[in-house]
Amino acid sequence: MATTKIINGKLVAKHQKKPLFSHYLPVLSWGRAYQREWLAGDLLAGLIVTIMLVPQGMAYALLAGLPPQVGLYASILPLLLYGLLGTSRVLAVGPVAIVSLLVTSGVGEFAEIGTAEYVHLALTLALLVAVIQTMMGLFRVGFLVNFLSHPVLAGFTSAAALVIGVSQLKHLLGIDMPRLEFLETVLYAGEHLADTHIVTLVMGIMGIAVLLYFKTALGPQLAKMNVPKGVAIPITKSGPLVIVLLGTIVVMAFQLNEISGVKVVGDVPPGLPPLTMPSLDLTVWQMLLPTALAISFVGFMESISVAKSLASKKRQRVDSNQELVALGAANLGAALTGGYPVTGGFSRSVVNYEAGANSGLASIVTAVCIALTVIFLTPLFQFLPQALLAAIIVVAVLGLIDIKTFRRVWKYNKGDAAAMAITFLAVLAISIETGILIGVAVTMIMFVWRTSRPHVAVVGRLGDSEIYRNVLRHPVQTCPNVVAIRIDESLYFANTKQLEDTVLNSITGNPQIEHVILIGTAVNFIDASALETLESLHKELTDAGVTFHLAAIKGPVMDRLVDVGFIKQFGEDHVHLSTHEAMKTIGCSFA
Amino acid sequence: MATTKIINGKLVAKHQKKPLFSHYLPVLSWGRAYQREWLAGDLLAGLIVTIMLVPQGMAYALLAGLPPQVGLYASILPLLLYGLLGTSRVLAVGPVAIVSLLVTSGVGEFAEIGTAEYVHLALTLALLVAVIQTMMGLFRVGFLVNFLSHPVLAGFTSAAALVIGVSQLKHLLGIDMPRLEFLETVLYAGEHLADTHIVTLVMGIMGIAVLLYFKTALGPQLAKMNVPKGVAIPITKSGPLVIVLLGTIVVMAFQLNEISGVKVVGDVPPGLPPLTMPSLDLTVWQMLLPTALAISFVGFMESISVAKSLASKKRQRVDSNQELVALGAANLGAALTGGYPVTGGFSRSVVNYEAGANSGLASIVTAVCIALTVIFLTPLFQFLPQALLAAIIVVAVLGLIDIKTFRRVWKYNKGDAAAMAITFLAVLAISIETGILIGVAVTMIMFVWRTSRPHVAVVGRLGDSEIYRNVLRHPVQTCPNVVAIRIDESLYFANTKQLEDTVLNSITGNPQIEHVILIGTAVNFIDASALETLESLHKELTDAGVTFHLAAIKGPVMDRLVDVGFIKQFGEDHVHLSTHEAMKTIGCSFA
Repeated sequence: MATTKIINGKLVAKHQKKPLFSHYLPVLSWGRAYQREWLAGDLLAGLIVTIMLVPQGMAYALLAGLPPQVGLYASILPLLLYGLLGTSRVLAVGPVAIVSLLVTSGVGEFAEIGTAEYVHLALTLALLVAVIQTMMGLFRVGFLVNFLSHPVLAGFTSAAALVIGVSQLKHLLGIDMPRLEFLETVLYAGEHLADTHIVTLVMGIMGIAVLLYFKTALGPQLAKMNVPKGVAIPITKSGPLVIVLLGTIVVMAFQLNEISGVKVVGDVPPGLPPLTMPSLDLTVWQMLLPTALAISFVGFMESISVAKSLASKKRQRVDSNQELVALGAANLGAALTGGYPVTGGFSRSVVNYEAGANSGLASIVTAVCIALTVIFLTPLFQFLPQALLAAIIVVAVLGLIDIKTFRRVWKYNKGDAAAMAITFLAVLAISIETGILIGVAVTMIMFVWRTSRPHVAVVGRLGDSEIYRNVLRHPVQTCPNVVAIRIDESLYFANTKQLEDTVLNSITGNPQIEHVILIGTAVNFIDASALETLESLHKELTDAGVTFHLAAIKGPVMDRLVDVGFIKQFGEDHVHLSTHEAMKTIGCSFA
Repeated sequence: MATTKIINGKLVAKHQKKPLFSHYLPVLSWGRAYQREWLAGDLLAGLIVTIMLVPQGMAYALLAGLPPQVGLYASILPLLLYGLLGTSRVLAVGPVAIVSLLVTSGVGEFAEIGTAEYVHLALTLALLVAVIQTMMGLFRVGFLVNFLSHPVLAGFTSAAALVIGVSQLKHLLGIDMPRLEFLETVLYAGEHLADTHIVTLVMGIMGIAVLLYFKTALGPQLAKMNVPKGVAIPITKSGPLVIVLLGTIVVMAFQLNEISGVKVVGDVPPGLPPLTMPSLDLTVWQMLLPTALAISFVGFMESISVAKSLASKKRQRVDSNQELVALGAANLGAALTGGYPVTGGFSRSVVNYEAGANSGLASIVTAVCIALTVIFLTPLFQFLPQALLAAIIVVAVLGLIDIKTFRRVWKYNKGDAAAMAITFLAVLAISIETGILIGVAVTMIMFVWRTSRPHVAVVGRLGDSEIYRNVLRHPVQTCPNVVAIRIDESLYFANTKQLEDTVLNSITGNPQIEHVILIGTAVNFIDASALETLESLHKELTDAGVTFHLAAIKGPVMDRLVDVGFIKQFGEDHVHLSTHEAMKTIGCSFA
């Protein structure tokens, strides 16, 4: 029995609430239990993630409208802190595409891309995200992310991927473009197609082709050649590194940046990240708050999904609230060292896991490797063409456009599919943050619609038994002056109207009805709105000369009704243990 | 059985969907069935409501920042239209306090009180409310008002009553005051107390005293004197009329407006309402939309509650969606004849009912009487002191401040009480519209919190029966390699996290578990989010070497799962009719 007791949800939940020191510092638990054979896996995984993260970090910074080094700065201290505080042993934190897009759309409203103010607002945004996520974790309100239903998140992600892809057109085509909305960007690119910088475009397309080859065909080919998995994984994941190196060499060799005008990353200051001080101005905070909330929620959702999914493979546990604290700390790290908002990335975490990461040490190894990169390797980036970073972004977000899920959800549930479609369209047509808000609103409207009409049955007696069933489905006996109604749902604000209508309609135009029985077998909860409705129903039925009865109310529900004085006012004589008891008390002689 | 069939909620709902002509024109049904003995009641009720409505209409117009005649104009055509289209036979439509406050706060942002533009925006607002309510009714989305839970509405109403009361300070004290927020108004009045116009104040206080006397002590006194109810009701309800008449006579006799400077209503143009054309400018509509939504929802809630409550006394029916159409038509009438947004008023409807109204004719009688008033009696209002209209408003809203409900809700359910308190404070501290939005948000957050943690039980076999019960409550047998989990709630976006955690925690650190059974006896619905969670759980458990089983899934839920291909992918062998079937198939030898 011990096992089943441990695994009972309630017990685990109680256990969690004891804040052990090691609960807030997971490094203590995996650190103490660290086994020597974990080391090779942690080192290799840390290294492979670095190979992915260096080009990705720069590319996503570019997407966020920031200088490329900011993406690298956001990949050092945040990873170190997550390694110490995170409960997932394999989550790879750092810049991710959708959060970067949210940064552009949020900060871009208040500052010009390329200005110091823009960079400062981005790191202030990281501080705000840190505050929000840490608070959510400490106050254990991680449940709030439940507002983002899967269809809304899927619609949002697909649309965001499209927006991101289209935003890279200017880098791939090598044309100048002002900051525009999605549709305007498409139109602008179409109108200025003639201005395309051919060398840039060729380079971008080749980059995309190479990346797609690495992503799809290379793995099976290596497997066919019997290359061991430990070697194959680093090779297949180094596509971004390969195109970045090749591109840099080509540009440097032919001086394409000067002769042909290919846009390059340019000077990246060498050395460790600077210590930075985010703005503490409350008006700035207020301005950035909506974006910070969106990043906190969306970032956490991406992170926790992959963390849980990977942890379960090894029967390990991820604690949502501690994850929020750890991500909060990572974002604080980003804010203090010239970075911008970070979260756990999906593909990098999967790579980390597959490459054999066993503990938070892998994350710390990555942080150290990135630090070495910014100290020693930045001169290499001088000739790195922006078109290749754009290629990396485009290939990364291609997989996020998810038409299959929409088809499936449409088949399964039209309401959910509508929420998904509306979110998708709202992100494209209005804006990325408004889109997600609209999605949440639609989910809630659907929900209220769904629960506002619970299943209701008028019941009668089955034969001579004490069992009462739906009069429409079973051959049951009823009493001409009594109506017994069962509502198959808890009673709360969303369905009080239905409760009221059901009960009142049962007497409308039926002067022979003298008793109404409400059966509570399926009622787990009665909220204050429903309580008030019961009170007004009681009054209204009494005024109409009808006696109102309650039957089979569950224990905990009854306790609350007694405490608040409702039962006394209602009349204890009219509250019955079962429907049959109620019928007997009324003296119903069955027809 | 015929009776019980009619009263079944589902059947009635189906019946409603057939749009009979008389469904959209309820006058046809009560008109055809009209009985001669109804006439006296309808005439008397119509007259008594007029006596209340003339001073109230002018007072509420003043509260809305409009000239007094606008309140009268809003009491003619709207009442006529409601009388023809409404399903309630006793609802008294017209200007009400809270809607008037919403008009001030919404229109006041865009135009100066006293200007023609302000009046024009107010009638445009009525048009918008008409459009929203009619749409809601025709598309049958009246369920949307379920978002306003009772605690939120109570908190909102109490706070709005306070705001309204305080807004009348300037009229009662006879001081000039700019348009201010709640707290500023209190402070301003405190600072300028020395400027109080004594004659005005005395008049206002006497007005309040007389009104309170009529409202409380007079009724019982008349009853003691054996005055018949038919005479007593008109007398007790004529308090406003009495103070208005007395006040007018006093001001006129002593020329207080000229000599002492008592502010009076002044010239009211005589004659029927003008035909007016609301603005059709979409930017104006967009500007007024939030206020229009608030008025549509809040107005409908006030109206439908009193309509239902009064209809039930005579076992009559009110159709929510048709009510929306009727209120929409009434507002359209207001927009076209120089009025402003209207709805069914609580106290006037009760009076209408008590005075014997039997049909929509009572409403039509009131409309005719008000029309006669604006044609012939407007010269009387010239000397009507504004302080007395303020007294009428103050006494009307006093009863809306509801501390008792708060105490009760607090005792019953802390979450609901918090929603109520937050709404109350937000209305006072921020604004009336933001307050209600915050209230709705809090309700939703509470709801997601509540449903995000359904009751979960790990179950075992009771003796040698086929019954499986909670291992923590019953002496049951379990199997060391199997865990059977029952979730007592439908599975949907709000609790997918809990579902995931519960299932994954059951195997965390328990390498002996080989089978997880999810029991669906309490699952009435699985939405797309939960479906996706089930799929990922299936994958994760498989990866962890655990077999995932489903047991006792309900018929309709199973149908959807089969349709979407989930069951096929899940493995039909792992779907069992009951928990016991699952255990037998697994080959569990009980400990």
